[in-house]
Amino acid sequence: MKTMLDAVGDLDRMGRTIVESGFDAVVAVSPENVNYISDVFVSTQVDIRDRLALIVWDGQRAPTFVLCAVEEGYVRQESWITDIRTYKEFVTSPITVLADVLCDLGLEQGRIGIELDYLGAGYLGALNNLLPALDVARCENLFATARMIKSPREREIMTRAFRGTEQALMETFQAARPGMTERDMCFGLSDRILRSGAESVAFTHINAGPNTGFPHMDPSGYELRPGDILKADTGGYYSRYYSNVGRTAKLGALNDVDRSWWGRLREIHHAIIDMLRPGNAGRELFEAATRLHEKHDIPFPYAHNGHGIGLQLHEFPLISPHDDTVYEPGMMSTVETRVRWPGEVGYHMEDLIEITDGAPVVRSDYFDNEEILVVDA
Amino acid sequence: MKTMLDAVGDLDRMGRTIVESGFDAVVAVSPENVNYISDVFVSTQVDIRDRLALIVWDGQRAPTFVLCAVEEGYVRQESWITDIRTYKEFVTSPITVLADVLCDLGLEQGRIGIELDYLGAGYLGALNNLLPALDVARCENLFATARMIKSPREREIMTRAFRGTEQALMETFQAARPGMTERDMCFGLSDRILRSGAESVAFTHINAGPNTGFPHMDPSGYELRPGDILKADTGGYYSRYYSNVGRTAKLGALNDVDRSWWGRLREIHHAIIDMLRPGNAGRELFEAATRLHEKHDIPFPYAHNGHGIGLQLHEFPLISPHDDTVYEPGMMSTVETRVRWPGEVGYHMEDLIEITDGAPVVRSDYFDNEEILVVDA
Repeated sequence: MKTMLDAVGDLDRMGRTIVESGFDAVVAVSPENVNYISDVFVSTQVDIRDRLALIVWDGQRAPTFVLCAVEEGYVRQESWITDIRTYKEFVTSPITVLADVLCDLGLEQGRIGIELDYLGAGYLGALNNLLPALDVARCENLFATARMIKSPREREIMTRAFRGTEQALMETFQAARPGMTERDMCFGLSDRILRSGAESVAFTHINAGPNTGFPHMDPSGYELRPGDILKADTGGYYSRYYSNVGRTAKLGALNDVDRSWWGRLREIHHAIIDMLRPGNAGRELFEAATRLHEKHDIPFPYAHNGHGIGLQLHEFPLISPHDDTVYEPGMMSTVETRVRWPGEVGYHMEDLIEITDGAPVVRSDYFDNEEILVVDA
Repeated sequence: MKTMLDAVGDLDRMGRTIVESGFDAVVAVSPENVNYISDVFVSTQVDIRDRLALIVWDGQRAPTFVLCAVEEGYVRQESWITDIRTYKEFVTSPITVLADVLCDLGLEQGRIGIELDYLGAGYLGALNNLLPALDVARCENLFATARMIKSPREREIMTRAFRGTEQALMETFQAARPGMTERDMCFGLSDRILRSGAESVAFTHINAGPNTGFPHMDPSGYELRPGDILKADTGGYYSRYYSNVGRTAKLGALNDVDRSWWGRLREIHHAIIDMLRPGNAGRELFEAATRLHEKHDIPFPYAHNGHGIGLQLHEFPLISPHDDTVYEPGMMSTVETRVRWPGEVGYHMEDLIEITDGAPVVRSDYFDNEEILVVDA
């Protein structure tokens, strides 16, 4: 029998956050928050979007899972949550079951936090019709705040995830040869990501030559040529946690232009990583990055320079001009430093850093990234 | 320069559907409908959910794409839509840009269809605040109806997709050996799905022995044993269209129990496939399936017995007791027939069928499925 303590995330902290929020209960709706609380991933919640999976929790008593009947057996086996109320697809609406659960909890006039960026407006309308006295407010920040500080097990998973993806990517670059296509690189990368321990591949933006100038292009039939820059921004799901590694290689010897861009990008990268310390905020890091890019004469048109990560690809805190969250030990952030010219060329590096009481620790340290990786052409 | 005619789907039909709907314009919000209209897949719309991508279209004039600035270069290269309005993440809200677009079109008091199951309730609230006189209604059915009939190019992509996945699955089963794990099978299956032409793997529920009793279990470390049933429900994305193939194999010789279940399931399967003809509706197929399962003494607790498929895994029409849509030539549907006992064993078959003027045509015909595939133990 699993208990709350078996969950990967820190549900004790999550529960306290709910209790302190003033909500009578919150409803988790998004795949990441349903996964975080239940410790089980219901894949059809993503693949068949109308198959809502919802968790009602007041942070203290046992949570209630509202679930499509077809998933009940699996969830009973995998989750610590035992109060499961099912609906039959196309027959009973999950919103009707949710309303019943709220009534059973005596909350038909309660103050309820719901993820309103995720829950479709039509579903909220149906809930309002069933329970007109319900007082609903958004609770995105509550979940984001609880999940910002990673538990030791989450940090271990994420470190393993990034290092696994790094190794997969390094081996894929090293196997690249002129005449191979971007898709050939993608086959090798995907296979290696899975073999490194991911349960599935999240994204494989691996490109060469002129295509490296785009941030998120699908690998194409473009054939690699000697002298091409190779660039990847890629990740997998490891126990449902994202990895997100950015690296650059070259098919052939580096030239002065490569070295000049890379050297300046590295300098900025190290400086920003070094600022990931308790007391600093993402806004300050972004402002520093803006100054550093100016100093090094590198365009910096981006909305962020790195991001929290976990069950979602972009989590808080963000290295953005709008994030004043102060870093605390146990947070994890990527730092990504890049320059690109669409249809011409791009250079990219992205690492995972753990915030500690002292100096920040780079957790994506499988791959020596001080120079662009050179691959024999 | 691409035009609307280059799109994979039948945008002429889509445009007419919008014009006939009575809406002044519709707003596509979900990844599948944005992809259908624009003919480009914006991957971050899925991976970073708050990065909304929206298309405003009245069905006649040029559509307007509301897009995160970081994706503009790629979309300008890939899509036929040229009226692109960008927002900067965390600085400008996509909803503010949407409101501006609607005002520019003179529609601040217009009747607008929006995908309200997808658009988060919080975003709709923001739009209502900006344009209080806007008359918004859901338009899910409009998109679903337009997309139900597949264009010849869509049918070609989907046939290639299913056959590619079938071949990947058959080769994976044939390579299975005692001592391999479910994850080992998953590595091979994923690689083969990619090499068959998918741009990415969608899901790989490939299991053995007792785990075949679950519908959607992630492949585990379970080690295959002689005599195990092997079962997969798997798919990839091919030009963004889903494949979804179900097959069953056995590690070793079939016994009478296997043959009995499979023979009865096959009989039901063929009978339901044969009903996929113009004039019939999903409800009638489901009712027939209910009777057939009773006749053959097979439990039938499911909400559907097959589904439309395309840019989404489950599309209309559904083989469900609640779908009265009459089949028309050019529609594509899966038929899935199965029985399972959680934690013990399960058998599953799922095929793609094209509805024509005459007899239905099975498009997933790479794999002879009349008997359970036998793999040497």
